[in-house]
Amino acid sequence: MIELTPVLDSKDTPLYIQLAKYIKQEILCGRINPGEKLPSKRKLSVHLGLSINTIKTAYEQLNAEGYIESKPRQGLFVATFEGDISTVQLYPQELNPLPEQEKVNIKLDFNSGKVDLEHFPYSLWRKLTIESLYQDQGELFNLGNPQGELLLREQIATYLYASRGARCSASQIIIGAGTQVLMALLTMLIGKDKLYGVEVPGFHRTRTVLQDLGEKIISIPLDRDGMDIKLLKNSKANVVYVTPSHQFPNGMIMPISRRMKLLKWAEDKNRYIIEDDYDGEYRYKGQPIPSLQGLDTMGKVIYLGTFSKSLFPSIRISYMVLPISLINIYLKNYTIYKQTVSRLHQDTLYRFMKDGYWQSHLNKMRTLYRKKHGTLMLSIKKYLGNNVNVIGENSGLHIVLEVKNNMCEEELIEKAFKSGVKVYPLSIYYQNKEGYNGSQVLLGFGGLSETDIDAGIRLLKEAWMI
Amino acid sequence: MIELTPVLDSKDTPLYIQLAKYIKQEILCGRINPGEKLPSKRKLSVHLGLSINTIKTAYEQLNAEGYIESKPRQGLFVATFEGDISTVQLYPQELNPLPEQEKVNIKLDFNSGKVDLEHFPYSLWRKLTIESLYQDQGELFNLGNPQGELLLREQIATYLYASRGARCSASQIIIGAGTQVLMALLTMLIGKDKLYGVEVPGFHRTRTVLQDLGEKIISIPLDRDGMDIKLLKNSKANVVYVTPSHQFPNGMIMPISRRMKLLKWAEDKNRYIIEDDYDGEYRYKGQPIPSLQGLDTMGKVIYLGTFSKSLFPSIRISYMVLPISLINIYLKNYTIYKQTVSRLHQDTLYRFMKDGYWQSHLNKMRTLYRKKHGTLMLSIKKYLGNNVNVIGENSGLHIVLEVKNNMCEEELIEKAFKSGVKVYPLSIYYQNKEGYNGSQVLLGFGGLSETDIDAGIRLLKEAWMI
Repeated sequence: MIELTPVLDSKDTPLYIQLAKYIKQEILCGRINPGEKLPSKRKLSVHLGLSINTIKTAYEQLNAEGYIESKPRQGLFVATFEGDISTVQLYPQELNPLPEQEKVNIKLDFNSGKVDLEHFPYSLWRKLTIESLYQDQGELFNLGNPQGELLLREQIATYLYASRGARCSASQIIIGAGTQVLMALLTMLIGKDKLYGVEVPGFHRTRTVLQDLGEKIISIPLDRDGMDIKLLKNSKANVVYVTPSHQFPNGMIMPISRRMKLLKWAEDKNRYIIEDDYDGEYRYKGQPIPSLQGLDTMGKVIYLGTFSKSLFPSIRISYMVLPISLINIYLKNYTIYKQTVSRLHQDTLYRFMKDGYWQSHLNKMRTLYRKKHGTLMLSIKKYLGNNVNVIGENSGLHIVLEVKNNMCEEELIEKAFKSGVKVYPLSIYYQNKEGYNGSQVLLGFGGLSETDIDAGIRLLKEAWMI
Repeated sequence: MIELTPVLDSKDTPLYIQLAKYIKQEILCGRINPGEKLPSKRKLSVHLGLSINTIKTAYEQLNAEGYIESKPRQGLFVATFEGDISTVQLYPQELNPLPEQEKVNIKLDFNSGKVDLEHFPYSLWRKLTIESLYQDQGELFNLGNPQGELLLREQIATYLYASRGARCSASQIIIGAGTQVLMALLTMLIGKDKLYGVEVPGFHRTRTVLQDLGEKIISIPLDRDGMDIKLLKNSKANVVYVTPSHQFPNGMIMPISRRMKLLKWAEDKNRYIIEDDYDGEYRYKGQPIPSLQGLDTMGKVIYLGTFSKSLFPSIRISYMVLPISLINIYLKNYTIYKQTVSRLHQDTLYRFMKDGYWQSHLNKMRTLYRKKHGTLMLSIKKYLGNNVNVIGENSGLHIVLEVKNNMCEEELIEKAFKSGVKVYPLSIYYQNKEGYNGSQVLLGFGGLSETDIDAGIRLLKEAWMI
């Protein structure tokens, strides 16, 4: 008979569990071999001084897990395994700790992903969050509409019409946890075997998402007004991804005439325009230009919007407005994809928009960013003067700085870094750096105070020895 | 000269905006034609009785938007558009309202996606949410680690080791807004040109995601113990997706011997096992069986877990544990994908786990579901007796009912529906219904009270005339 001498000393764990665990370990460590017969319940009960019931339950557990098997009229046996069970370790693998996010001692970070959080209405957001948590006890905890909450979509539709000139009903809107998630869904709706035209320079994330999803892309260079329509026409692209309100990264605003040309291009069958309006809320001169979506009468434009810039980045709420043709495809085949944004956040944002806080927050932010932008331009003029050109300064939360001191991009970034300032490369927005001339950096200013902006630019003057 | 007779009557909108808007509309409606010369600022100022500055700002706005253009020494002209601009409408499209989620007058819904929310610790969750909102004013509002919050990942790693026998460090965990989102990322990490073996019957959502992502899949039938390894070996699958803790939908628990065989299969180069442990927390007999991941010594298992069943579905927090080889690929090439779960929710869940609430919530839920499960089994015995077989009753939040009254699946569902009870088809878990014999329905019981469960089964007896 197999020798079983467990130490059953835990007061918190039932005896049968301790026993089963012990036997399991003996099997896994190879101290009891496959095929061996186990002692009868009665014998083991006497041997260990435990009740028959405890032994019985332990055996049942081992049986359920497949460690032992019962043979009719013969008793219980250790099961036979195919794998080399003795190599199984019972403790966590030792891992070389992998690097967590790099922490650098940087004083001023011109990160374009950051927004101003100093002026975020925290107490109000807290209050509305609590309201959501008390709402309909529990209802918001169940799965919601895969498209997103209707109430929130209605608010978005109203906002889009009033502020961005976009025309849609709530039924055309799909909410999602970020543009990357929505792009993945969108490519499914648009279908296979398309060629996507992307701006160069342009959002590297979109280019990567499309490539990672196995879509074919083609680079379309820009001219002064945005994507070059002639080059687009000469390409075989069926779908085009553009940032007309504020080209990323170069910042030009696509004029109405170019917009009309782009819409004209899309009239051909199976062509679509993806309009990414990632920071269309912020414009420093005059009124915002209406979105492409608002000018589209043929149902050719997909509008992408986000609350990352206008509210805060970590909330992960974005949305897309689909033309009727695509929303019908969605409703028919793709509602199997669950909504990716928490209903609680959707509900809180709905309350924020419905009660007018959203509009006043936007207004406050516009004023704030206009002031920061003004300070940035002034500091650049004051410290860097004619040694730099500013590109795309009419809107948004970033600018591109072309530096004329004969340093290449890498050098510019490195020198700045050594002075405690983080500025960002422009080359990543070019496909394989093609067409990139090498002396530009990206500066986001949304997350910095006016004092910091001024200090940062002053440090850049020293760093770049201008 | 163009006749301009705007009605500038809004008190809330600056005059220059009203004027620019008016001119824009005149252009868009075709009342002013492309190429026409605009009146000089001075002339229009006199004509309208407005300051020169107002006219100047309005013209600048129109110029910025591309509606008008300035020709040196000639003045301002309406821009020429390529598209047929006169068809542009300025008001929202009329849409046939699309159907929102169907509302049916159903008394008892055996939906397997629902969980018990009556016993959710709302006030505690609210308190922790508030703590998250007060934490480090603002820090949680910025974008976080693309993998997910380190603190939460540490809690998950500890929990997985203690409760599921899974062995990993926080560095191997990636958090995401649902299994579908994580599967999309995972297929990128695993790479192109793989053949995915999936259980039949099995999760239709996973099958669909894989197909929609353009991956090739092959159906591997089950036997009594789960996926048939012989059939798997004969297939050319490189990657296999399984639900060993509680096969979906059939509910069998894969015994240890089968698990070892599966791991053995995966030892070949470039093979992987995706283990979806969607409701492994709930098991009604004995201890849970350790996960495949915990038995894996070769780094071949990807473990998928979710808080949808164990916490609540709308929070949208899932995670995957990657072997070192895949986490390295992730860190090298895929951190460009932003985290899809709100940092606030991640932080609240971290607090919930850290302070032991998670463990006691799980314990409470286990007891609760065990009771509900008992009631369900009792009611089935009482009302339906030998007219049904119950499949997969050892764990999880659903069972499969095979009904022996000569009704097909559709009929069973329809009759139940007419009696106010919603039960669910099993055929959707078969690829093209292949191998499906047609008289089974799925019953989830997590979201129903014991009284409702009993009432529901009683209604089914009548509906099915048993």
